[in-house]
Amino acid sequence: MEFMTGTLEKKTLEIIELTSGEFLNSNVSVNGAVHNIRDMSDIAFLILRKRDGIFQCVLNKTDEKLRDALREISEGATVLVSGKLIENEKAVNGVELHISEIEVLSEPTDTMPIKISKFKMKTSLNAKLDYRPISLRNIRERAKFKIQEGIVRGFRDYLHSQGFTEVHTPKLGAKSAEGGANLFRLEYFHKPAILQQSPQFYKQMMVGVFDRVFEVGPVFRAEKHNTKRHLNEYTSLDFEMGYIDSFYDIMEMETGFIKYTFDLLKKEYAKELKILELEIPEVDKIPTMSFNDAKKAASEKYGHEIKNPYDLEPEEEQLIGKYAKEEFGSDFVFITHYPSKKRPFYAMDDDDDKRFTKSFDLLYKGLEITTGGQRIHDYEELMNKLQKRGMSDEGMEDYLSAFKCGMPPHGGLGIGLERFTMQLLDEENVREATLFPRDLSRLVP
Amino acid sequence: MEFMTGTLEKKTLEIIELTSGEFLNSNVSVNGAVHNIRDMSDIAFLILRKRDGIFQCVLNKTDEKLRDALREISEGATVLVSGKLIENEKAVNGVELHISEIEVLSEPTDTMPIKISKFKMKTSLNAKLDYRPISLRNIRERAKFKIQEGIVRGFRDYLHSQGFTEVHTPKLGAKSAEGGANLFRLEYFHKPAILQQSPQFYKQMMVGVFDRVFEVGPVFRAEKHNTKRHLNEYTSLDFEMGYIDSFYDIMEMETGFIKYTFDLLKKEYAKELKILELEIPEVDKIPTMSFNDAKKAASEKYGHEIKNPYDLEPEEEQLIGKYAKEEFGSDFVFITHYPSKKRPFYAMDDDDDKRFTKSFDLLYKGLEITTGGQRIHDYEELMNKLQKRGMSDEGMEDYLSAFKCGMPPHGGLGIGLERFTMQLLDEENVREATLFPRDLSRLVP
Repeated sequence: MEFMTGTLEKKTLEIIELTSGEFLNSNVSVNGAVHNIRDMSDIAFLILRKRDGIFQCVLNKTDEKLRDALREISEGATVLVSGKLIENEKAVNGVELHISEIEVLSEPTDTMPIKISKFKMKTSLNAKLDYRPISLRNIRERAKFKIQEGIVRGFRDYLHSQGFTEVHTPKLGAKSAEGGANLFRLEYFHKPAILQQSPQFYKQMMVGVFDRVFEVGPVFRAEKHNTKRHLNEYTSLDFEMGYIDSFYDIMEMETGFIKYTFDLLKKEYAKELKILELEIPEVDKIPTMSFNDAKKAASEKYGHEIKNPYDLEPEEEQLIGKYAKEEFGSDFVFITHYPSKKRPFYAMDDDDDKRFTKSFDLLYKGLEITTGGQRIHDYEELMNKLQKRGMSDEGMEDYLSAFKCGMPPHGGLGIGLERFTMQLLDEENVREATLFPRDLSRLVP
Repeated sequence: MEFMTGTLEKKTLEIIELTSGEFLNSNVSVNGAVHNIRDMSDIAFLILRKRDGIFQCVLNKTDEKLRDALREISEGATVLVSGKLIENEKAVNGVELHISEIEVLSEPTDTMPIKISKFKMKTSLNAKLDYRPISLRNIRERAKFKIQEGIVRGFRDYLHSQGFTEVHTPKLGAKSAEGGANLFRLEYFHKPAILQQSPQFYKQMMVGVFDRVFEVGPVFRAEKHNTKRHLNEYTSLDFEMGYIDSFYDIMEMETGFIKYTFDLLKKEYAKELKILELEIPEVDKIPTMSFNDAKKAASEKYGHEIKNPYDLEPEEEQLIGKYAKEEFGSDFVFITHYPSKKRPFYAMDDDDDKRFTKSFDLLYKGLEITTGGQRIHDYEELMNKLQKRGMSDEGMEDYLSAFKCGMPPHGGLGIGLERFTMQLLDEENVREATLFPRDLSRLVP
């Protein structure tokens, strides 16, 4: 009878151990994928790609056995090499392995369709996406998604510290929060079903249960946009919190998340930031401007003509972002009090001027990455708003039941993970910050 | 100009602060939902439901203002109460608040459709699910989902400590890993699409990028099962790891996760475990039995007739679970070497006997909660297996490209979150451990 004890015997070392000093001049074993081979007359450099970076091994070709082994090794093979760990300040980690033994674990059958061992790939975005399983092996490409991981960790860890509970709500449903447009539809055991555009209804219902909840999950938008900032499936970072005094509480919570996450990135993702040549700025405070003031400020300072008084055009968002940077030195700016007619029925109108709502967007370097606000918590008020909009409450019985049975004042927000990552990385296209993008033309890979 | 600094001014206290001793005999403010009112002649007890538990407030009815306020308060209202914090060992937290002021934040319009203030709800599962937004407000019901949160935290935190990277892979696709049956289908901009049954292909491709990856996300199964253990949408805890020596490495990793998670639950979810009257056992080691040995053992010890030599019936899983408990004192047992014909094409066959695979299931109290194993990493071997099964590689070009370009030996597993929770909670039906279940008849709430 064999038993599992939860302990994996470690026979190979990772870069963090190899560079710790502990194993210098010792015999060690290292595994990895062959990133690159530089074959000289007497020696060859075997550069391994490991999960925590690049590692240099040196192979002495005067050793007949090793010379034979070298012939079998091609880029993309995975190997297990053993030998002495030697200090060498010219090697990328300050150490290198002098190979005494080499075992090929697996071999590729083809050569790489794109050049991934270059530091910066000179490949078009389309080619990168077409060969996604391969292009992501590039050191810079994969570093982007480590940064993305850090953003998600920051979101979860910060909210957990603030008393939020994580939930998992269904993506298949009969009805969605934002109404009928832009929904993917399917048949669910002979019933019509949709894919949720957001966990809005569910997270609100859960405020009645846990007060503060969050969810990280996919959302689906059947929008026919073909732009650099739209995806048809993306990862949404959502939270909703009860017992708020005003919608400014939500903006404070988001500001806290950003500060926490930027600190986390600086602390735990320094290696990836260096690879990507990124500086994470200090975020002490984030300015807020009302929708109307921001519109006016961008128009006056940059001579931009206001065409639509009820919404912000992409160009206006850019100008407001520029304004925030120039006037307040901030990459971020909260835009508050969006017009009611551009917000969903559940948004709470402003007491001072009912044409506007207690809501906000967060712009990051001139792009909207968050929409949030206070929601109506009173059942009668919610029903009135539905009626005023000529909307039916059909299919919303469960959502409305939470309000009938009492709900605290609450609000929340949704952050587009890929957009946030894109702006942090200074990318031009959201697809650069999406592992496997889904857009009008991409359903594979 | 207003700035957000990320700091929320706290005017109200949570139970952890109220019971800390720091605020004893001080004037404090507390918010919460009215869980229960016990109205006596001179005083009334106002029991609040807060996110971290139940809290008792006392209202003196001889105070005219408070007596008037009491009239407005019904179960389900949310309130902000202020007053003196007084020691009282008979109160649930050892302290209670003597109300001097009360503000109603929101009021319900209806009475509760089900009795949620009871400690144990005597409601049928169907009624609980029909009124899900309300039934989850019950203290015991919501505690189940805090435990579920703990399992997910344990999974992520443990794997993170083991060098895994978290990924988010698309749920919309053109093709799925397990083939055509049991897929939800939809139209994606005039192209046929499916919802992924598992992130299998994606996590394998990502092994070539990050070596070790995990994902927590929804999976979709259009299975027409109507049982106590099947859902049509559930949350899957998936990981995949490269450079394994054998599939036992995967089982060791899962054992490590379970030990870590049980410790986390004991440490950080003690309150919920107490509410649910649950004891978390020590897990030192998990026994393993081969598929054939386990089948034989259950048959011999319990006189169960073997009907299908290629699969385990639910009754057999139960008997094997019973066997593991009686023989090894373990709630868990790994069943290894499943027959090849019952495993997908990418499963690696056993070198000693090709009719079996290097794969396993984990049974927990007699129910399968995990399927995992080593995958084929060699391109030619993968193509041979496909051909032997008469399968086409159409639509798998991207998946296969990863193998053409080299993949390390690897394997992984998928854990059904709701099933794991169900078994931990000793529930009879997986729907008890699902926030909003999706089954043959439930698409709402």
